[in-house]
Amino acid sequence: MFLKKISSLQNPFIKQIFQLKEKSRARKKTDRFLIEGKRELELAIKGGYEIEKVLFDCSITSISDVEEITDAINVEVLEVSNEIYQKLAYRSTTEGIVALAKFKNLSLEQIEFSTTTPLILIAEAPEKPGNIGAFLRTADAANVDAVIIANPKTDIYNPNIIRSSVGCVFTNQIATGTTSEIIEFLNKNKINNFCAVLKEDSENYHLQDFTRATAIVVGTEATGLTDEWLENSTKNIIIPMQGEIDSMNVSVAAGILIFEAKRQRNFK
Amino acid sequence: MFLKKISSLQNPFIKQIFQLKEKSRARKKTDRFLIEGKRELELAIKGGYEIEKVLFDCSITSISDVEEITDAINVEVLEVSNEIYQKLAYRSTTEGIVALAKFKNLSLEQIEFSTTTPLILIAEAPEKPGNIGAFLRTADAANVDAVIIANPKTDIYNPNIIRSSVGCVFTNQIATGTTSEIIEFLNKNKINNFCAVLKEDSENYHLQDFTRATAIVVGTEATGLTDEWLENSTKNIIIPMQGEIDSMNVSVAAGILIFEAKRQRNFK
Repeated sequence: MFLKKISSLQNPFIKQIFQLKEKSRARKKTDRFLIEGKRELELAIKGGYEIEKVLFDCSITSISDVEEITDAINVEVLEVSNEIYQKLAYRSTTEGIVALAKFKNLSLEQIEFSTTTPLILIAEAPEKPGNIGAFLRTADAANVDAVIIANPKTDIYNPNIIRSSVGCVFTNQIATGTTSEIIEFLNKNKINNFCAVLKEDSENYHLQDFTRATAIVVGTEATGLTDEWLENSTKNIIIPMQGEIDSMNVSVAAGILIFEAKRQRNFK
Repeated sequence: MFLKKISSLQNPFIKQIFQLKEKSRARKKTDRFLIEGKRELELAIKGGYEIEKVLFDCSITSISDVEEITDAINVEVLEVSNEIYQKLAYRSTTEGIVALAKFKNLSLEQIEFSTTTPLILIAEAPEKPGNIGAFLRTADAANVDAVIIANPKTDIYNPNIIRSSVGCVFTNQIATGTTSEIIEFLNKNKINNFCAVLKEDSENYHLQDFTRATAIVVGTEATGLTDEWLENSTKNIIIPMQGEIDSMNVSVAAGILIFEAKRQRNFK
């Protein structure tokens, strides 16, 4: 196997790769992003992501490790100098592998349901990578049928989101769309949508029937859901709160709602 | 009212205050910490915290605002220059007020229960301020009877914890102790403890009875709970997961468990 090695930070390909690490715009423009770490790369391959190149630092990992991970796919492997790798890597505990991968731009119509009573998590305009990562971990753990991001503010392939999702960005079906498109999609597919909203006339979440086709919809902590959601919901729901402040982390709230649905479905 | 104004960064009191912002050791040594923001100060006063001094920047807020907030307490108010305030403030959207307050070192014996069937959240050795803040928000929203930190790694008056708890650090009874002390306390008070642990022989959380005196115990994401907990638990419990990765954010998991207990108790 002939192995190309790159050691110049001025290499045009490496410069392009740096852009993908730093800039959402560069990722969106090229539909490409970076995957750092062995476990993440394995999950992405398993999740059917198209991997275009794998870069590794032989001072950290070995070519045989790389070959083992990429065994099932056809991909160009490049060796890079430690200097380049340190600039590419995001995490302090690095593993010597970064891959260049292609976006999955899943549209609403491309979501595949294996059941007539799917459970979906929808988040409108989420911004904090930590919250998005936590949503995706909850979605994976609950094995929801899909995650939908409405009016996305950021691309989900932001390195901080990949990291805080511990790779769950690769294990979920994640589609995006405008709020209008998603509401139309839910109506067309006869999926009930339950919108979490801190209003007095919202109904208690635990008294709802989440066993039918269900979407749980959450907004941002700062502004909640837009009126369009609240006006088109099957039910507006609330988690009853009895504290001084009545404020929960949005990813905790989403977890409580999703797992109440799971409980009602006997975790099937 | 005679108002003292400090404008030198070299002022010994100001230098001491800076230490409290930056260093856990300085906080622990003096049993003092800083509260930034109007809402946070109001919550701390309401929560019975002893406020020793209030510092304000008159270029941001007015003395009458400060007097309104501190109306019910007897406290020295100091004006500081904008230069000092900017160095004291932690948040980008500042409100011109920082207070010096005294720790509440609540011991286990000092916890006051208003019911014979309390609900308690226990976290062992939590480290990430974001997770601790989310625990405290969940605890406030659920109006749990107490939060207990076992083998604390950090003081809860870390500015990042105060901030990420959105002030819920002041609305909860928070006690600390070693794991051994806490287990003894639970046994003495006949409080069942349910330890969340990812093991095959753990029982499903939603099949437990959380209506009696209950403590929900969670560990860290990295290492879980120590053996001492697992060997002394009433039950080891698990949230059934069906994903690729089976990993949830620990504050999401705690929220799911606490609100399952609330649901079983009909939110009373």
